[in-house]
Amino acid sequence: MKLATLLTAEGVQIVAVEGTDDAPVFRPLNWVDLTLPKSLKEILATEHGLALCHAALLKCQSEKRVVTGTLLPPIPDPGKVICIGLNYRDHAIEAGMKIPEEPICFGKFGNTIIGSGGAIRLPRVSDQVDYEAELVIVIGKRAYGVSQEKALDYVAGYCNGNDVSARDWQINKPGKQWMLGKTPDTFAPIGPWVVTADEVDPNNLTIELRLNGNVMQSGNTHEFIFGVAHVVSYLSQLMTLEPGDVIFTGTPPGVGMGRTPPVWLKPGDVVEVEIQGLGVLRNPVIAPLPVETA
Amino acid sequence: MKLATLLTAEGVQIVAVEGTDDAPVFRPLNWVDLTLPKSLKEILATEHGLALCHAALLKCQSEKRVVTGTLLPPIPDPGKVICIGLNYRDHAIEAGMKIPEEPICFGKFGNTIIGSGGAIRLPRVSDQVDYEAELVIVIGKRAYGVSQEKALDYVAGYCNGNDVSARDWQINKPGKQWMLGKTPDTFAPIGPWVVTADEVDPNNLTIELRLNGNVMQSGNTHEFIFGVAHVVSYLSQLMTLEPGDVIFTGTPPGVGMGRTPPVWLKPGDVVEVEIQGLGVLRNPVIAPLPVETA
Repeated sequence: MKLATLLTAEGVQIVAVEGTDDAPVFRPLNWVDLTLPKSLKEILATEHGLALCHAALLKCQSEKRVVTGTLLPPIPDPGKVICIGLNYRDHAIEAGMKIPEEPICFGKFGNTIIGSGGAIRLPRVSDQVDYEAELVIVIGKRAYGVSQEKALDYVAGYCNGNDVSARDWQINKPGKQWMLGKTPDTFAPIGPWVVTADEVDPNNLTIELRLNGNVMQSGNTHEFIFGVAHVVSYLSQLMTLEPGDVIFTGTPPGVGMGRTPPVWLKPGDVVEVEIQGLGVLRNPVIAPLPVETA
Repeated sequence: MKLATLLTAEGVQIVAVEGTDDAPVFRPLNWVDLTLPKSLKEILATEHGLALCHAALLKCQSEKRVVTGTLLPPIPDPGKVICIGLNYRDHAIEAGMKIPEEPICFGKFGNTIIGSGGAIRLPRVSDQVDYEAELVIVIGKRAYGVSQEKALDYVAGYCNGNDVSARDWQINKPGKQWMLGKTPDTFAPIGPWVVTADEVDPNNLTIELRLNGNVMQSGNTHEFIFGVAHVVSYLSQLMTLEPGDVIFTGTPPGVGMGRTPPVWLKPGDVVEVEIQGLGVLRNPVIAPLPVETA
């Protein structure tokens, strides 16, 4: 099942997605189940929430119900946006970096989240904004101290993500903390929808990023140094993961920073992330806002 | 005005705090203004929200209304928990570290927030948990790209904070990112209440931390390398700050890591942070949870 958050003429709706990536058909789950929350995060926090979605989808199919609208981020308001760094073996080797013995973890805040079609807004104070195609894990159940063996039980599904990064702020500042370079507004596009975990083998997916149609990153999640179960278990030893939390799992080779000359995002660019079976996450890049407005 | 979030027999209420730190009197603002949100974050996001609180307080005073209950974190659900590292000049000099040229910034997630009286729960996987007394800024208005000159207009108030830190996870992991060591559950006590900005000179406050009654940190915010206006302006260049966001501003000398031998928190400890005029933030320390529960 593919689940999306759609802005319709009647407000925000949770929909199941059918059809093709290019011509998706949206099934209005909230129309046929009035008890279903209009938030994917809340649905995941509801007991048997995904089963309710599936029942609603069957009803939509039998009643031939469809709806149109604009895709929002599938989870517009994750409680946590956690990121893993340097998690592809081939990327680490290419970069001449030591393969880490434990996951490298950092965070973004919720101001970064946009959906497919949303604009990546360049910050006025950076001229080294880069892309990173990433598989994103969506947590489905509260998880604390879970083992690797049981970790996948806590995953609701997956989506494409782009861990947009202002390299000048990520790397060159005192203290060497990456957070500032990672958390400018709009720097975490996710979507276009979440594909439930039963339909995804997360550790064997092709992953590609295209900039203005040109393939810039191409890899496979079988290069993960730390697979999905490892990452979820590891994080849950320190913090309680909650439904709707999202985890970016690192990026394959080919980022703009590593090129000669480097490639930085500029207004007018279009970035696409496409992971096998997860649709296409497409985001235009726009110029900075003037200051003292929001 | 001092504002707190109180769990009463009638549910969560926003209250104004009068009386003394040891014997506070709580004025039930929601009882006399039914339009007032029961969330300080939502009140701050409401136009003239603090003026509504003040009007409600006057009404409570004239009607002699008080309420009792248990203090919750003044902001239980901040959208962002931002932290500044190494921001006291005397601490940097003592530690033999170079004074940073720009603020060192990192983040915690919302799972860290507890109030005064809430328990700091040690993680099962760390045996180097440390305390850090910090002045916490509470953002009152949406801020993007604001100048230092105008930055204080965007601050609603201040409270005590404790930037609890698992040093083994903060410092010794590959990638040197601090986030994991900073974001275990319960690692950001704040409170007991927020004092509105009109009553606070944030850059000249005594700040003290006591562990089981012994003074461990003692300083003054006039040692800030980057003052409140600088920090708010700096962060707002990259990310939109929202009402209810909280910013930890760094810690003075005396943390447990810097002592010989080091001092780590253990079950049964009581940690108190007291900043001039902001009351006392008091938290017991408890043993880890068993795993695979939450």
